[in-house]
Amino acid sequence: MVIQDMVAENMMTENMEIRDMLIEDINYLAEVFEQFYPIGALASGGVTRLGYSAEEDLMHSTFVSLAERLGLETFIDQAGNTFASCGKKDEPYFLIGSHLDSVVDGGRYDGVAGIMAGLLVMRWAKQEGLDIPIRTAAFRCEESSNFGTYAIGSELITGGSPGLVTSFTGKDGRKLADIFAERGYSLRPEKITGIRQYLEVHIEQARVLEQNGERVAAVSTVAGPRRFKLHIQGMAEHSGATPMNIRNDALCAAAEIILEVERAGIAGAPQHSVATVGVINNQPNVLNVIPGTVELLIDTRGINVSSIDSMELHINQACKEICARRGATFILERIGETLPIDMDKTMRQKLLKVMQNLQFPHRQMSSGAGHDAVKFAGICETAMVFIPCRAGISHNKKEFATLESICDGARVVYEYLQKEWSASW
Amino acid sequence: MVIQDMVAENMMTENMEIRDMLIEDINYLAEVFEQFYPIGALASGGVTRLGYSAEEDLMHSTFVSLAERLGLETFIDQAGNTFASCGKKDEPYFLIGSHLDSVVDGGRYDGVAGIMAGLLVMRWAKQEGLDIPIRTAAFRCEESSNFGTYAIGSELITGGSPGLVTSFTGKDGRKLADIFAERGYSLRPEKITGIRQYLEVHIEQARVLEQNGERVAAVSTVAGPRRFKLHIQGMAEHSGATPMNIRNDALCAAAEIILEVERAGIAGAPQHSVATVGVINNQPNVLNVIPGTVELLIDTRGINVSSIDSMELHINQACKEICARRGATFILERIGETLPIDMDKTMRQKLLKVMQNLQFPHRQMSSGAGHDAVKFAGICETAMVFIPCRAGISHNKKEFATLESICDGARVVYEYLQKEWSASW
Repeated sequence: MVIQDMVAENMMTENMEIRDMLIEDINYLAEVFEQFYPIGALASGGVTRLGYSAEEDLMHSTFVSLAERLGLETFIDQAGNTFASCGKKDEPYFLIGSHLDSVVDGGRYDGVAGIMAGLLVMRWAKQEGLDIPIRTAAFRCEESSNFGTYAIGSELITGGSPGLVTSFTGKDGRKLADIFAERGYSLRPEKITGIRQYLEVHIEQARVLEQNGERVAAVSTVAGPRRFKLHIQGMAEHSGATPMNIRNDALCAAAEIILEVERAGIAGAPQHSVATVGVINNQPNVLNVIPGTVELLIDTRGINVSSIDSMELHINQACKEICARRGATFILERIGETLPIDMDKTMRQKLLKVMQNLQFPHRQMSSGAGHDAVKFAGICETAMVFIPCRAGISHNKKEFATLESICDGARVVYEYLQKEWSASW
Repeated sequence: MVIQDMVAENMMTENMEIRDMLIEDINYLAEVFEQFYPIGALASGGVTRLGYSAEEDLMHSTFVSLAERLGLETFIDQAGNTFASCGKKDEPYFLIGSHLDSVVDGGRYDGVAGIMAGLLVMRWAKQEGLDIPIRTAAFRCEESSNFGTYAIGSELITGGSPGLVTSFTGKDGRKLADIFAERGYSLRPEKITGIRQYLEVHIEQARVLEQNGERVAAVSTVAGPRRFKLHIQGMAEHSGATPMNIRNDALCAAAEIILEVERAGIAGAPQHSVATVGVINNQPNVLNVIPGTVELLIDTRGINVSSIDSMELHINQACKEICARRGATFILERIGETLPIDMDKTMRQKLLKVMQNLQFPHRQMSSGAGHDAVKFAGICETAMVFIPCRAGISHNKKEFATLESICDGARVVYEYLQKEWSASW
């Protein structure tokens, strides 16, 4: 789909209200979207804009020029995060944040929608002469696709653990520490200060809103990922000469385990849990050798810790049974865990009230995906607004949200900011 | 295990007969083995000596210097295969062949044992003044590990299809055509001529001989591999936000298919068939994305074509059922087939007679693995002699055969050549 078609598709959205202001807003968002559109574009139709890559840099410099065109001040912090600000200085500010990086061959809305909403909120504030202190921040490297861990930019400035970060190596083999040194960033940057409250607009990445015909949601809890590295050791042998009954095929063991991880996720589904094998590395991975070693990376998530515990137990028991039966050995290592994080209850209730006042069909819901908001929930009052994305597809070139939905998210935040600033609840 | 220990282990083999000649032969083979030992050695203990690599080159130049030390003439043909010759000229010659390359992180006996046996046969012929025309050939790139196809060196000089070969690309990304051009080799080399009969000594790569306490085998049939590339297309989505019940996970589909390939092999086991998934490539292969695309390379083999057909049918039906159920699509493509090849019946019967005369416990058996011999079976009378390898392990650093077994294989060939030359059956 070329850019003109995408904008046209947006303009024709069924439930679009034709108001002068909305048309102007949609036009502005289309212009912003068009600026980001070609960056990291692939022949497949998707984009690859990995964290701390040249493509992400270009996204950030585009954000700077868009902000400057609105007359906003901009600055870059010691972790490479980019900020645009307006309104009163020397007062605690409302921080609207999200990210501009993507997964490999990903879509154009995950993260970007939140930055677009932030720009629109600040544009309205400027147009209406509203003197509220607002900053919009694009955080670096929210996706774990490049360095195997997520939200590095927001983690570092909210009190994260730079000790671990120093060992991170990107998909291209370069160390994060070297990239930081080269750019003059710091793995121990100054902590962010002066935040009044944090707000993030994000695509839902599931299809609950779409299926229920709802326009926005206030997020209750963000699911916590618990991640594992599984090493399976079988026996590499000649694939032609080794009879079936004496093999210790590490890939066959891995195949059984992949299906058990799926079963663990299905068992946890009533508690909104999921379990996924995203990465498989097979050795020696040649046609005429029975696989001897397989490594899997497993991602489990949920909003209910006991459900996550049950999935881990299921996976661990499956590894034991399958590897014992197949004469293989395994090491299952927990490589990371974030606990489920509740969003601020008061902010959430106020957001629901705004949605009600705007007469936007809405709901409260949990988030399966992690977000930069999680990092801020530990240091300030934090809330999130979800907008629908088509068929719930995300981390895929087919990811799609209407510009009207982005406008809806911005509208909720803008109305909230006005009321919160004037304490007129 | 260091080289001294390996030789010591050989010297202590239980069933070793202590004869003066045998000790001298074992010492000679130990010396030869030691020359090859360090080439392509890895920290893991295995070796990587890929076809048409610098490591294989070094194996060939070592073979040349070992042959010259025996006073043999040597030459290299237009495909890079190396020959040593002795005895009568201008007469059709007995060709003893095998290879000196290995799989990735492989063992030190697959192929090499046959070349060592050839050197020992020619050493005996020289020592005993036997004027039989014999050549020992080390063929290039027998393993499919580098270019995805096996026996390139012997294929090219026996009438193979250079048209296909021109597109081959090695594991390091270099084209075979460029490697050939650089070395002055030809993808259309002169065909080999003047062969009287072809013989190959090879490790069994299974454990039939070991389990039955037998020292040698005459090969009846070499199994034919039929190979497939399977492309599975699911849907890449966010692994945190996408509920379990709406996924189209390509890796879960692949896992089910891997287990069905195994079941197809088990069903074919009574007909000595095997089926293996050796290669899996998962996309995008990152922690936070449900796999969208998986490619598998499948290797099926057997000596019974109808059994191979049954396995293909089983795999095809499994792909249909699994992908339909999971909302994925697939393309199953046959990428290569070699029919099972019978070894020459008369030669085989004569070899069994020699084994009987030598009072070596022996048998007739099929070969699951492909060998250079397959390429010669189409142009001359061809036979193979198997020797045991420990626990049947091959294509692995644990691959091990005793020097005495290599000596046994050479002895069978040497006795055969004398009788065949003098027609004294």
